[in-house]
Amino acid sequence: MLTKVNRHHTALTLCKSIVLAASVLSTPALAQTQDQPLSAQESDPIEMGWMQGFPPPDDRLLKIGSPDFFQFPALRYSVCHMRQFMPTIPVSRDLKPMTPFEYAIDEQISDITFKPWGADTTMTLEQTLQKTYTDGILVLHDGEVVYEHYFGCLTEEGQHAAMSVTKSFTGTLASILVAEGKLNPQAKVGSIIPELEESGFGDATVRQVMDMTTALKYDEDYSDPNSEIWIYSKAANPYTRLQGYDGPVGYFEYLQTVEKNGTHGEAFGYRTINADALGWIISRVTGKSVNQLLSDRIWSKLGMEQSAYYQVDAHGIPFSGGGLSAGLRDMARFGQLILNEGRWHGEQIIPQEAVADIRQGGSQEAFKKSGHPKLKGWSYRNMWWITHNADGAFAARGVHGQTIYIDPTANMVIVRFASHPVAANSANDPISLPAYQAVADYLKGGK
Amino acid sequence: MLTKVNRHHTALTLCKSIVLAASVLSTPALAQTQDQPLSAQESDPIEMGWMQGFPPPDDRLLKIGSPDFFQFPALRYSVCHMRQFMPTIPVSRDLKPMTPFEYAIDEQISDITFKPWGADTTMTLEQTLQKTYTDGILVLHDGEVVYEHYFGCLTEEGQHAAMSVTKSFTGTLASILVAEGKLNPQAKVGSIIPELEESGFGDATVRQVMDMTTALKYDEDYSDPNSEIWIYSKAANPYTRLQGYDGPVGYFEYLQTVEKNGTHGEAFGYRTINADALGWIISRVTGKSVNQLLSDRIWSKLGMEQSAYYQVDAHGIPFSGGGLSAGLRDMARFGQLILNEGRWHGEQIIPQEAVADIRQGGSQEAFKKSGHPKLKGWSYRNMWWITHNADGAFAARGVHGQTIYIDPTANMVIVRFASHPVAANSANDPISLPAYQAVADYLKGGK
Repeated sequence: MLTKVNRHHTALTLCKSIVLAASVLSTPALAQTQDQPLSAQESDPIEMGWMQGFPPPDDRLLKIGSPDFFQFPALRYSVCHMRQFMPTIPVSRDLKPMTPFEYAIDEQISDITFKPWGADTTMTLEQTLQKTYTDGILVLHDGEVVYEHYFGCLTEEGQHAAMSVTKSFTGTLASILVAEGKLNPQAKVGSIIPELEESGFGDATVRQVMDMTTALKYDEDYSDPNSEIWIYSKAANPYTRLQGYDGPVGYFEYLQTVEKNGTHGEAFGYRTINADALGWIISRVTGKSVNQLLSDRIWSKLGMEQSAYYQVDAHGIPFSGGGLSAGLRDMARFGQLILNEGRWHGEQIIPQEAVADIRQGGSQEAFKKSGHPKLKGWSYRNMWWITHNADGAFAARGVHGQTIYIDPTANMVIVRFASHPVAANSANDPISLPAYQAVADYLKGGK
Repeated sequence: MLTKVNRHHTALTLCKSIVLAASVLSTPALAQTQDQPLSAQESDPIEMGWMQGFPPPDDRLLKIGSPDFFQFPALRYSVCHMRQFMPTIPVSRDLKPMTPFEYAIDEQISDITFKPWGADTTMTLEQTLQKTYTDGILVLHDGEVVYEHYFGCLTEEGQHAAMSVTKSFTGTLASILVAEGKLNPQAKVGSIIPELEESGFGDATVRQVMDMTTALKYDEDYSDPNSEIWIYSKAANPYTRLQGYDGPVGYFEYLQTVEKNGTHGEAFGYRTINADALGWIISRVTGKSVNQLLSDRIWSKLGMEQSAYYQVDAHGIPFSGGGLSAGLRDMARFGQLILNEGRWHGEQIIPQEAVADIRQGGSQEAFKKSGHPKLKGWSYRNMWWITHNADGAFAARGVHGQTIYIDPTANMVIVRFASHPVAANSANDPISLPAYQAVADYLKGGK
């Protein structure tokens, strides 16, 4: 099987969303291949035996500090074991009893059919699971679990990298602070963080950071060794400093080096560094680290099953742009909180206004300029993706297929963890997005 | 406060038990000072502000991969945040509901008086807490919590490095496997792990490893740069490989290089590498990593409050000799399981014989040769310290003051986490051991 995959070459420039994977260890994950990558079944991480044995055989050993660990197919193991490869910081669930979900399982969901974008023939939801390298999927309807399955490296007591879904947590925390009047979205970043005054962020507003309409010189051309993505990755990687790298260390030092490139507020530009800057902003405003704030405001309030965690930089700062790992059901609890406009079991946990501000969406005009031609009419608000479709659906999205997809009309939350060989969601959207709509339509029909 | 501590120089050779701290990052912690170290109050990690602020000020920033993080007084922060400085692997509590302790708090325990070894005047238990830099203490009597306090970096929902207390978990797992007939204590190590056949471990029995009566060339002379302790530390440290080190990587590679030095079975010699070898043995025998085995056999069975974790080497192998971090109450649950001869809430979780074999102790003759003159009549069995005193007390012990102290006659478990500036327990035993006996005597008196 390895022989097959070794033939695949990494096409570095094909994948813009790869920044998260890249920032993990200064190396891009496999982006796109001309050959067919291993199928989900062929690349099953348990079958492949990554890190199994005492010691694991050389060709199944993923060494700490080596970029190999996040290359497909090894990443199908690593997404469930991020803490084993780097330092982390907990998001405490506190010690309260967990709140179990109610279950109303409906396995007919497997048989829901739909037509993928651009396809002539239909596909079932069950077929999408392998096609999208799903590691775990959970569907909530009316607050009850109607569908839940685990594959690959994930189990119900395991945890999985959320990748850029992390950003929606950062954005939600910021939205909470705005709703509470503790963070002024019109304030200039430089007025909150003087260290960023001279950077490209300095005269951007908090709102522009939250909606990623900042104009920043931040190039993600992986083929150019002088591209900002590489400098960022080296700064974010907790190990490069130990390997002789002498540039900026950590998110905070890196962010100060970012230059302006144009006029803020005109166009949506998906750049992870906005989420890192927002993490800094909310920490400076609250005096709490992002992991502590997330625990205080959300993770300790929903009867979570497991404490979550963030990977950290060399200074112990959590990666607000993509470093969260958590259990599938706990991600679903968060999704349900958002669907419920901030209420959980009758209690208003976070302000209703914080969720309303997400759901209303951002500028569709600004989004249109962003180079996401397939996501017609969408916008980006508080680090959530807003579809503006008939159901008013919105989503948190991360590379390799991570998602929290919320459809208020269907009263539905879908959470999916995955390890697709291609980082960019454009690789699985043609299947995933119509599949989610089909499930919503089925549930709206009263099952 | 820092000025005061900067005057203290590290006396490298004074502290034999420092191996655990050293293995963390190839550097010894502050061992002993001629001046008085900062007091517990002066060195309080919250007051000192380690890693507080966004970013923390330079003199409070502990960088990943820097040896500073485990130097006193910074170690008073780091003992609660080990995962923030290195890769880790979880010991899952599973998703079962937690089992709360019954409480029967008796604050009069604070006022129990006793005479420290060699002292003329008495001290109260409360006074010992500051003197021993206690971060958390919990006393169980008849299975109920009678005393529980947190200090320094620790809170009830926090976790703390157990240091060499970890070894007693490794030893208990081995004792379970022996009781179940799955591990032959008379088997030669080389027959179980062929890779160790040619090493000093090869012709030692499993029993000799479990009781640390192996004769190994393993020098802990910190002043000699060629001392084995330094090679071990570099191998164990997940980062040295990234810094140009090209020796053996990880516990398994290092253990193969250990040479024999004398005759196995004659003398107790406290060497952490025995616990690492035992971890390898039980993994090879069961096909499970030590963290998985600990979860399956113990951590998922006691209604633990938190999943625990191990620090790992560059190959993801848990540090069986000292890498466990856990919550205080969960350590107490384990202590109570052992006190109860393997039963927990009426159910036999681990074989009674496994505990009986610990409690019977090892060779006092072999122990006498070990250079622990203050621990008269003690022995070492299955990686537990057996006092052979009138109460039949026995203990798990780790550097800087970690302990699980079990007194079957008093039906008592004391668990203490601490961050004493001196690694070796000989620095706090003159206070700690008579204090524990005084608490036992008080509880035996029916409170």
